[in-house]
Amino acid sequence: MSSINDNLRELISEYIELNDAEWQHFSSKLRCKEVRKNEIVMSEGSLATDIYFVASGIMRTYFTNESGEEKTFHFSIENTFAADYESFLNGTQSKYSIQALEPTQLVLMSAETLRDAYKTLREGQKLGRIIAEKYFFLWSDVIQDIYMLAPLARYENMKRKFPGILQRVTQHYIASYLNITPVHLSRLKRTKL
Amino acid sequence: MSSINDNLRELISEYIELNDAEWQHFSSKLRCKEVRKNEIVMSEGSLATDIYFVASGIMRTYFTNESGEEKTFHFSIENTFAADYESFLNGTQSKYSIQALEPTQLVLMSAETLRDAYKTLREGQKLGRIIAEKYFFLWSDVIQDIYMLAPLARYENMKRKFPGILQRVTQHYIASYLNITPVHLSRLKRTKL
Repeated sequence: MSSINDNLRELISEYIELNDAEWQHFSSKLRCKEVRKNEIVMSEGSLATDIYFVASGIMRTYFTNESGEEKTFHFSIENTFAADYESFLNGTQSKYSIQALEPTQLVLMSAETLRDAYKTLREGQKLGRIIAEKYFFLWSDVIQDIYMLAPLARYENMKRKFPGILQRVTQHYIASYLNITPVHLSRLKRTKL
Repeated sequence: MSSINDNLRELISEYIELNDAEWQHFSSKLRCKEVRKNEIVMSEGSLATDIYFVASGIMRTYFTNESGEEKTFHFSIENTFAADYESFLNGTQSKYSIQALEPTQLVLMSAETLRDAYKTLREGQKLGRIIAEKYFFLWSDVIQDIYMLAPLARYENMKRKFPGILQRVTQHYIASYLNITPVHLSRLKRTKL
């Protein structure tokens, strides 16, 4: 857990001032979890009780529409977060599901831990602000991608945002992320050669 | 300006503790602006220097894609905000344009004023956190709408989110928001009768 936590501490320290005592207090409330490939850690309709920090592995976030089609719209790689942050903050039903696509090591932060951090870390509110802003930027990117970009440009963006994604994730999920069929994806990749 | 500011103060006071001295200091830095119908207050590619609080009137936020098509993806009605919050926070080029669809009264808050508020309001960071969270929730809704809902359900959602919108905004912009053609919109409305 210690090297995993070092990475998380480093990330948080990029955002706020954090001394040893604060980190000690905060990190004592974090939990580690190992999940299997394909394991679903959170399902649509449930309550998002935790934010997941991906220490190693990769997660996907997706909706299921009325026809039962899964629409992947985000991947979380190492040293980034996965969460239904809205359900987590508001205690509302989750809109998304989150699934591991590899054996994955997670650090879990509960809503109670985040609320405690707002009060006990000197810059806890600032940390909350920056996490919300980062999430907002991510989702803003998703909207821009959907409205503005053709599949090929989205494909290029995806590779930039999630380095190594093509080697790690099946074509099926790549196509789902690009919101195209697997056949369309094959054609797209041929066009690029 | 005073009654406009009262509304803004009331809104902010829903989020954080704010005493008279804090409000005095904060509100002294706000500016008012009247904009004409159809006036564009911010254009794609420029720097978002301000957040706009809509005191009266209505604004739309849109992209222009490579074919020159405008994609409206948000309306800001009275007592809500309009901004390219990402450009505003990061000092990056704006991805959106923002246009008044009626004669509109705005209260402008600059990035400097927000940064000052982080420091000078006791709960400034919390205010920043809540604004970012609200933006995140809005954009999360947009993503859910696009991926999950058929045009009819998006139409119903739009009416719920922006009360009175059909009486205030031309069919052209309604269709653009729903990402359908004006012909498709007419058909949709007939189906509903």
